[in-house]
Amino acid sequence: MAKSGTQKSVDRAQEICLKAAQMFFENGFESTPVSDIAEALDLTKAGLYYYFESKQTLLYQIVTLGLDSVQNAVLDPAHHIVDPEERLRFMILNHARLAAEGNHAVIIISHEINALTSAQRITVQKRRREYFDFVRNTLIELKKQGKLRDLDITAATFTIFGMILWVPRWYRSSGSLPVELVCKNVCDLALHGMLPEQN
Amino acid sequence: MAKSGTQKSVDRAQEICLKAAQMFFENGFESTPVSDIAEALDLTKAGLYYYFESKQTLLYQIVTLGLDSVQNAVLDPAHHIVDPEERLRFMILNHARLAAEGNHAVIIISHEINALTSAQRITVQKRRREYFDFVRNTLIELKKQGKLRDLDITAATFTIFGMILWVPRWYRSSGSLPVELVCKNVCDLALHGMLPEQN
Repeated sequence: MAKSGTQKSVDRAQEICLKAAQMFFENGFESTPVSDIAEALDLTKAGLYYYFESKQTLLYQIVTLGLDSVQNAVLDPAHHIVDPEERLRFMILNHARLAAEGNHAVIIISHEINALTSAQRITVQKRRREYFDFVRNTLIELKKQGKLRDLDITAATFTIFGMILWVPRWYRSSGSLPVELVCKNVCDLALHGMLPEQN
Repeated sequence: MAKSGTQKSVDRAQEICLKAAQMFFENGFESTPVSDIAEALDLTKAGLYYYFESKQTLLYQIVTLGLDSVQNAVLDPAHHIVDPEERLRFMILNHARLAAEGNHAVIIISHEINALTSAQRITVQKRRREYFDFVRNTLIELKKQGKLRDLDITAATFTIFGMILWVPRWYRSSGSLPVELVCKNVCDLALHGMLPEQN
């Protein structure tokens, strides 16, 4: 069945976002001209500007797409998990998977925020902060249950994000390590690091 | 005692490197004009070019300075530590301290490598690889001694670097967490994550 014009347009906009996100991740936002993005997508510059009024709008849409992906695949389902240990395991595994699978819109969330307008930046920072606080509150719950090692909760939360968000810096799905093994390793290392052994 | 002209010149070159490294870290290499770096240092552009023939040479000198700092404070002393657990603890603590203390030359090692010439890039990658292999070999030693959890050694090595190299992305020494506490937390989390409890 042929897609409606609107759905096609949404799909094309998303395709542009993902390609541009990859180019911004690899070469930086400032160093990637709109003409290069258009060329990589077989579009003219005018064709690209039909979808996004400016390079800054394109970046904002990419970051929004990335945040939506994390929200849908990680944060929303995690809200339904009552046990904090199980919730943390779910979040680390699934966020690491999104990062490892090369979704560059997800990867770019932690980059290039300076290039946004201040209103866009505030929106993005608010959404990132909500996610950070949710993970942090999960560690607080674990601590209350006597299930957290003697760690500073803020430092531990940032360090978990470091483990996850570093994955796209080194992992290539074309290499010998399967995605699932990498995600399991990051998750095991983080959980053993934070939770004392159960006897 | 007044310093010799040569020593003064070396100190000034290093001061330029550290300031430029901070600006490259905060705004990106491409987005930081040489004129801004000169202005931040109360120099003319010509004054800055007296020390570095090009922006690329400046970047290479920064990365070299960062690699030398890691070599002197982490890698060289670690070579003398026989026990692999003690060696790993030393490396994580001391590399995290370098990163947390805001030495931007150290921080920049893992950024902006694409802007170097291919010969410079090869030299930098070789030195980074030597360090990576040294940490990786330490994990192999731990595994042989039965002191490593069931982890993929390559994934675990990269994840340790992620924990350390993420510190400058979030930690500010002007905040409420002392540097030593942050380094201890990163180190404890990494070691408990990798090494099984000792009974």
